[in-house]
Amino acid sequence: MDYLFSNRISSLKPSAIREILKATANSDVIAFSAGNPAVESFPVDAVREISADILATRPILALQYGVTEGYEPLRQLLSDYMKTKYNIGRDFDSLIITSGATQVMDLTTKVLCNEGDTVICENPSFIGSLNCFRSYGCKLRGVNMQSDGLSVEELEQALKEEKNVRFIYLIPNFQNPTGATMSLAKRKAVYELAKKYGVMILEDNPYGDTRIKGDDVPSIKSMDEDGIVIYAGSFSKVLSPGIRVGFTVAPAALAAKMTVGKQAGDVHTTMFFQLLVYDWMKKYDFEGHIEKIKSIYRGKLNLMCDLIDTELGDFVTYNRPEGGLFVWCDLPADVDMPAFCKAAVENGVAIVPGSAFMVDEKEKTQAVRLNFSTPTDEKIVEGMKILGKAAKSFK
Amino acid sequence: MDYLFSNRISSLKPSAIREILKATANSDVIAFSAGNPAVESFPVDAVREISADILATRPILALQYGVTEGYEPLRQLLSDYMKTKYNIGRDFDSLIITSGATQVMDLTTKVLCNEGDTVICENPSFIGSLNCFRSYGCKLRGVNMQSDGLSVEELEQALKEEKNVRFIYLIPNFQNPTGATMSLAKRKAVYELAKKYGVMILEDNPYGDTRIKGDDVPSIKSMDEDGIVIYAGSFSKVLSPGIRVGFTVAPAALAAKMTVGKQAGDVHTTMFFQLLVYDWMKKYDFEGHIEKIKSIYRGKLNLMCDLIDTELGDFVTYNRPEGGLFVWCDLPADVDMPAFCKAAVENGVAIVPGSAFMVDEKEKTQAVRLNFSTPTDEKIVEGMKILGKAAKSFK
Repeated sequence: MDYLFSNRISSLKPSAIREILKATANSDVIAFSAGNPAVESFPVDAVREISADILATRPILALQYGVTEGYEPLRQLLSDYMKTKYNIGRDFDSLIITSGATQVMDLTTKVLCNEGDTVICENPSFIGSLNCFRSYGCKLRGVNMQSDGLSVEELEQALKEEKNVRFIYLIPNFQNPTGATMSLAKRKAVYELAKKYGVMILEDNPYGDTRIKGDDVPSIKSMDEDGIVIYAGSFSKVLSPGIRVGFTVAPAALAAKMTVGKQAGDVHTTMFFQLLVYDWMKKYDFEGHIEKIKSIYRGKLNLMCDLIDTELGDFVTYNRPEGGLFVWCDLPADVDMPAFCKAAVENGVAIVPGSAFMVDEKEKTQAVRLNFSTPTDEKIVEGMKILGKAAKSFK
Repeated sequence: MDYLFSNRISSLKPSAIREILKATANSDVIAFSAGNPAVESFPVDAVREISADILATRPILALQYGVTEGYEPLRQLLSDYMKTKYNIGRDFDSLIITSGATQVMDLTTKVLCNEGDTVICENPSFIGSLNCFRSYGCKLRGVNMQSDGLSVEELEQALKEEKNVRFIYLIPNFQNPTGATMSLAKRKAVYELAKKYGVMILEDNPYGDTRIKGDDVPSIKSMDEDGIVIYAGSFSKVLSPGIRVGFTVAPAALAAKMTVGKQAGDVHTTMFFQLLVYDWMKKYDFEGHIEKIKSIYRGKLNLMCDLIDTELGDFVTYNRPEGGLFVWCDLPADVDMPAFCKAAVENGVAIVPGSAFMVDEKEKTQAVRLNFSTPTDEKIVEGMKILGKAAKSFK
């Protein structure tokens, strides 16, 4: 039978990366293609203890329906934490718990965008979010990335040219896929432009707590005195992605509409894991764990980058990121990038062609994305040697 | 600041019931207004044992990202179970795991409906689903309920009159809110009508395993040789609603699109609880637990209905349901229904005015919905006596 699909969904393809992941899931291929947190970053012992305690003392609370906004004590704790530590959240803001940060993108788009409205994004950007915007029939306008964040000139050009721009989607810290961190000056400039043109900013910060060197740059949300920034936070990189707990800090009027949208979408986020996050933040050494994670990623990022230098040398140009999970490498102009990716996987290493992250997937790019959080250190060494050999035949 | 919301979301209101619930959450009001499963139905000991085992033996699998379609062994187990026990699922079908059954409604609408397309539903129907369809800008066309399911004549009339009908939404077993079970003859007739008019059926079956007397009526999906039925299943009533695990059995082409939609919406359902459901079905006495649940609800349903008879007498007319969580009571024509609901809550019992479930909330109804699963037996007795007294002043 031929099914008639909605316009929004008919052109949408499964994420190229998740398809690569599925293909390599049960094989010996070394996955530089994923975005999974390092397994050694999961606080397994704490999760065991807290889970047992929840089910011993609060089983009904954990298993019964909850309210859509989220478990109230967690909302309060997290609000206080974000305000104290990051200056995020004003009196006009509200924090709601979501089923992973991806749901923040989903609800923001649901609440703000009609079909055909425009979302401005960094180009390249996180494919999951791009697909989310596409799934609401939004038009995407890409603004090219530079080493210190997107081009502010191009952003203003886009704001002038595009009709019905509803929001600007940004990953200011260790952007996926480029690894770039937006400078403070650009954050301020982007905020002022959003204000000037009357559009919202959706600030996605999944990697903020993975900084391995240098100082934190204030988030755009921390500058938000006008109620124009929606902040998306996640526990996927600091606790566990499998538990699907994220949150948003957004102007209360928006958060209320997002709540209505979430009620119709999945009712509420799992109570058990909201309790678990609450206990973990309240009773365990949350800050100490973040330091541990930074130390893990410091080792893995530097290991991979050092090996890029020795194994690939001038075959690639890249900027060493200050955090995040990815390194973005440009191949020489005369190299057939897709052919290199193909050769890599045939030799046992999966990498993602940069085109997967382009707003227009047909746009030419010489870049590939390498992930260092998923493979073990041994596999990083092994995989980089394979890539080095593969590169030789392209020189 | 004034925010401009999408068309789909601007007219959507929070569920009246969830608002009543929030208002009564921390009060002494007896909640006949909720739809929570009875807490004694949760298999707490099994959940404790399985959780400990998962975190002892498979912590990384439980905490890491999973694939969007769901945990493969669970998909397989559940497919086999649905096929063997209910004759649900053909070679052309595929089963995917969702974040509660509500997400099946969300994904079905996302995949099938453009804004302005029509969804035909039973009238009255489950407000959560109605709001889900509304959240995609769908037009709702209600077909009136009768004691043995919706009016088939009215359904055909609607199919003739409405343009761009994409699917018919049905809760054939112990419908929320009416408690009615659709007869086999009507299920067959509805299937044939859907086929004749080229529309899909979305069959929502959250209460199927709560039947307290009589025999199961075959599901519409079990008749589906043409790939026109999407089945929504849930673990909320047999295991726990807080874990947010549901599933759909749908034609593979649709399931593939739903997967793409889910990927953009919440990436995947919590791995931990997928593992938990798998272990529970595989290693525990799943069927025995369902019998236990039926026994709990048999007691509570009969307790409430017996008390309706003794305390309310001919103040209400109703059909005693054969399962589900709700009793739908019609008040006499000359009684001011909203005033009765108000009097009830002022005297300490929250009930839901039937208007909350009408496709057109302004449509007049004399009905109220009573829930017997949430309150304890003692509270059912106490609450029904209060309602009985309140009724006296309306006679």
